[in-house]
Amino acid sequence: MNNEYKLVRNALGRMVPTIINGKKAVPYQGVGKYRPTGRKAAPPISTCIDYPADGNKVVNDIKTALQKAGIKDGMTISTHHHLRNGDYVANMVFDACAELGVKDLMWFPSASFPCHSQQIKHLESGVIHHIEGSMNGPLGEFASYGKMKGMGVLRSHGGRYQAVQDGEVHIDIAVLAAPTADPFGNANGLTGDAACGLLGFALADSQYADKVIIVTDNLIDFPCYPWQIQGNYVDYVVVVDKIGDASKIVSGTTQITKSPDRLLIAEMAARFVKESGIMKNGFSFQGGAGGTSLAFAIFLKDFMIEENVKARFVRGGSTKYLVDMLEQGLTDYILDGQTFDLEGVRSMRENPRHADTSPFTSYNYHGKGNFATMVDTVVLGATEVDVNFNANVVTHSDGRLLHGIGGWQNCLFSRCTILPIPSFRDRIPVIRDEVTTISGPGELIDVIVTERGIAINPLRKDLIEQMKGSNLPIRDIIEIKEEVEEICGGQPDPPKLGNKIIAAIKWVDGTVIDCVRQVIE
Amino acid sequence: MNNEYKLVRNALGRMVPTIINGKKAVPYQGVGKYRPTGRKAAPPISTCIDYPADGNKVVNDIKTALQKAGIKDGMTISTHHHLRNGDYVANMVFDACAELGVKDLMWFPSASFPCHSQQIKHLESGVIHHIEGSMNGPLGEFASYGKMKGMGVLRSHGGRYQAVQDGEVHIDIAVLAAPTADPFGNANGLTGDAACGLLGFALADSQYADKVIIVTDNLIDFPCYPWQIQGNYVDYVVVVDKIGDASKIVSGTTQITKSPDRLLIAEMAARFVKESGIMKNGFSFQGGAGGTSLAFAIFLKDFMIEENVKARFVRGGSTKYLVDMLEQGLTDYILDGQTFDLEGVRSMRENPRHADTSPFTSYNYHGKGNFATMVDTVVLGATEVDVNFNANVVTHSDGRLLHGIGGWQNCLFSRCTILPIPSFRDRIPVIRDEVTTISGPGELIDVIVTERGIAINPLRKDLIEQMKGSNLPIRDIIEIKEEVEEICGGQPDPPKLGNKIIAAIKWVDGTVIDCVRQVIE
Repeated sequence: MNNEYKLVRNALGRMVPTIINGKKAVPYQGVGKYRPTGRKAAPPISTCIDYPADGNKVVNDIKTALQKAGIKDGMTISTHHHLRNGDYVANMVFDACAELGVKDLMWFPSASFPCHSQQIKHLESGVIHHIEGSMNGPLGEFASYGKMKGMGVLRSHGGRYQAVQDGEVHIDIAVLAAPTADPFGNANGLTGDAACGLLGFALADSQYADKVIIVTDNLIDFPCYPWQIQGNYVDYVVVVDKIGDASKIVSGTTQITKSPDRLLIAEMAARFVKESGIMKNGFSFQGGAGGTSLAFAIFLKDFMIEENVKARFVRGGSTKYLVDMLEQGLTDYILDGQTFDLEGVRSMRENPRHADTSPFTSYNYHGKGNFATMVDTVVLGATEVDVNFNANVVTHSDGRLLHGIGGWQNCLFSRCTILPIPSFRDRIPVIRDEVTTISGPGELIDVIVTERGIAINPLRKDLIEQMKGSNLPIRDIIEIKEEVEEICGGQPDPPKLGNKIIAAIKWVDGTVIDCVRQVIE
Repeated sequence: MNNEYKLVRNALGRMVPTIINGKKAVPYQGVGKYRPTGRKAAPPISTCIDYPADGNKVVNDIKTALQKAGIKDGMTISTHHHLRNGDYVANMVFDACAELGVKDLMWFPSASFPCHSQQIKHLESGVIHHIEGSMNGPLGEFASYGKMKGMGVLRSHGGRYQAVQDGEVHIDIAVLAAPTADPFGNANGLTGDAACGLLGFALADSQYADKVIIVTDNLIDFPCYPWQIQGNYVDYVVVVDKIGDASKIVSGTTQITKSPDRLLIAEMAARFVKESGIMKNGFSFQGGAGGTSLAFAIFLKDFMIEENVKARFVRGGSTKYLVDMLEQGLTDYILDGQTFDLEGVRSMRENPRHADTSPFTSYNYHGKGNFATMVDTVVLGATEVDVNFNANVVTHSDGRLLHGIGGWQNCLFSRCTILPIPSFRDRIPVIRDEVTTISGPGELIDVIVTERGIAINPLRKDLIEQMKGSNLPIRDIIEIKEEVEEICGGQPDPPKLGNKIIAAIKWVDGTVIDCVRQVIE
């Protein structure tokens, strides 16, 4: 792989590389401006001749499965984050690769977490060449200081599906952690010690990887139904003692923020949704599992009950708060991308109106439409927002790359994107003249809600009009920014960055929206 | 398209064409002998830019949808048979094509029925060039007499998926009849006036066709869930008054045979399954919706209750008889390919253990295994069987092509394939020296059950051994054949056939197992 690149200015004015890990990359051209050409990736045609007639694909261990799958230097190996910070499988896979003496692998996780920090030794020893995928925490820090051989590539959930579907990333071997599976490879996340709800992040891999390995700690007789992952895409099944630490996969309960400021922000966001007329019968919304998002959902729920309003659907990450809404008849459906607590898992298992979705249905920009554009409003976080409403979710203001994109970019396509965020954190202003890394373009971000006021994107004249006369503190974003800078004692020091580009940030269409430079210690 | 072909002898000794409708064809090479090469079909990459952000893909009518989809001469248009003999949609599609003045289309139905006999006028006028798909009844008769311009191609349900997946058949425009759909194109067969259960026959088309049109008479708000067909694959949605005649889609009740001979055959088949040891805890079976199959299931159910045996799964076509078994706890699951009566539809809608399957999961021979090989026993019909156990399901002994293959070829891969058939029909022997058309190779057909005795394939030494000492009339197939010929007054006259090949019969791997010649009037 080759890290030679030249930089060009993209449509947001950011300098981005045109070659990433030896492959050509297209600079970001604006929302809805880049048209893909060509055809989807075409996996090799299989034949039943090569698969056991009794449907039993179980092999001894991960190492055997990797060998049978033809593991060799330079391959791309994928794993997934439905077990979140409780995942054991990705570590087992690369330990097995190390034992097999394989080098220069590209690790293609849907996301990595602090539980994967032991992969640093495989990055250092050369087993893993580089990571394309979210690097939450320690791996992001490792990459930030320029220690990874290749360039990191961050994609949204939808962008990951797009990249695999379009053949931008060819997965040689996909390894899927499965809370329950049968010997044929049908798998789901609904039951078993490591039950996590659904396995949608692994869908693209099952469809497009050359070889697919299921790793489970709960093998049941055929059929494992529902088959969230279809055994007809699976080559081998491996049974291990434990695929993860249940306590870190889903929490027993999800916690609402206790911070008075965050509660205020959440309430203001909910009031905004109500007063702007978005909250009406048959509407839809999406929140996350962060403390502020949860509080938002609870405030909104109260307003819905007060006004006798029912949603057609709400999008998960589901929690017991969304499940309550479903069970109380406040929404017809939960369309869920991941389950964040045990109530979410139970509901998905038991309630036929709690649907599992995938990055294909929800987020893939290179499909025939997707669900994200049909959501009336979404509340999302950000580490920084600039005065043009461009936002950052991947780096901190000190330049360190510590977070993935998740579904964030994809969700920006909702009809009203709201970022309820504090105006500063640790005395560092969150509203900036320019963000450290652009993760999403301002034209798609409609409203910023801070404890000091609500800024509406000037492009949304309809919302500005609608909110005239509201008691909510609608303010100019620059005004809020200046007020915050006063409190914090001015703008923060710029991060100390080198020239080396340590990661590229892809947009939902596969173009490069920004990149991240090495932090100098 | 070019009908020039030379004939070669395939592995079963049948002369088959090497060119079919201008495309190269591979002669049958034996079970598990032909290895596919290459990669799966790769549809064009789409982009959300081209689809409405509000998810509303509804257009005025079928003609508009076809025009927007770029209909033109020579294209391949697909439809499906989940509405069976009650389908209105295929007729509407080709009437629209005729109005648009389009010519030389290839119609690629998953099956056609007598309700489609009006397509004969489109075959005569040149709107439709030829049909690749089952031709049940009048269309088969039309083709049999050499009246169709191109060569018919018959494939099993699994073979149809294989052909589309492998790119052997490129579908330009797929038109899917949907009993319920939303404006985004999510669709299912569970509710609505034309509820038919499931839409699995259309899965391949949704995944691989260039353009996909949903036609529904029951448009509901997004989301239509479960989405048996995913809107992310859909281009346009059309709403019509009625997609079909409910009374012909599913019957209110399915009828068990009343013929004493057929009942005897069914009982003998069930006793064979019991005495051979196939019927044991955790076993599985598949029957169809024919009168004899239904009777078989009822006899087997009684034996299961007597012996306290529970199945792990039964394969549908489901009927109220299978639903009773599920609801009485005699099986853990129904894995269903189609629902034949209203009880089947209700059960699939309500019971999470009544699973909808597809030709991909169940039958695709070019997948990483399929369900068919995991079924312990299957009972199937046949028009003729020869002394080597080769069987025919497509033509009658007079040479007329009147039936499709359905899942029949795919089901032959079960662990024990049983054909419960009468030894003669209308004084024409069913057991022959040679069948008119080989639809499936004898090596996969294990047992023939007739009212005059049961013949076990000599290849199945295990079954022969197991049945030693049974009271069932186990006999040599030649002995039965000779007895029947005596009753019927000898062998029937050979059919009067011309040289023209009117249809090719594909095997599950896409090779040509046999062909059908023109019948001379």
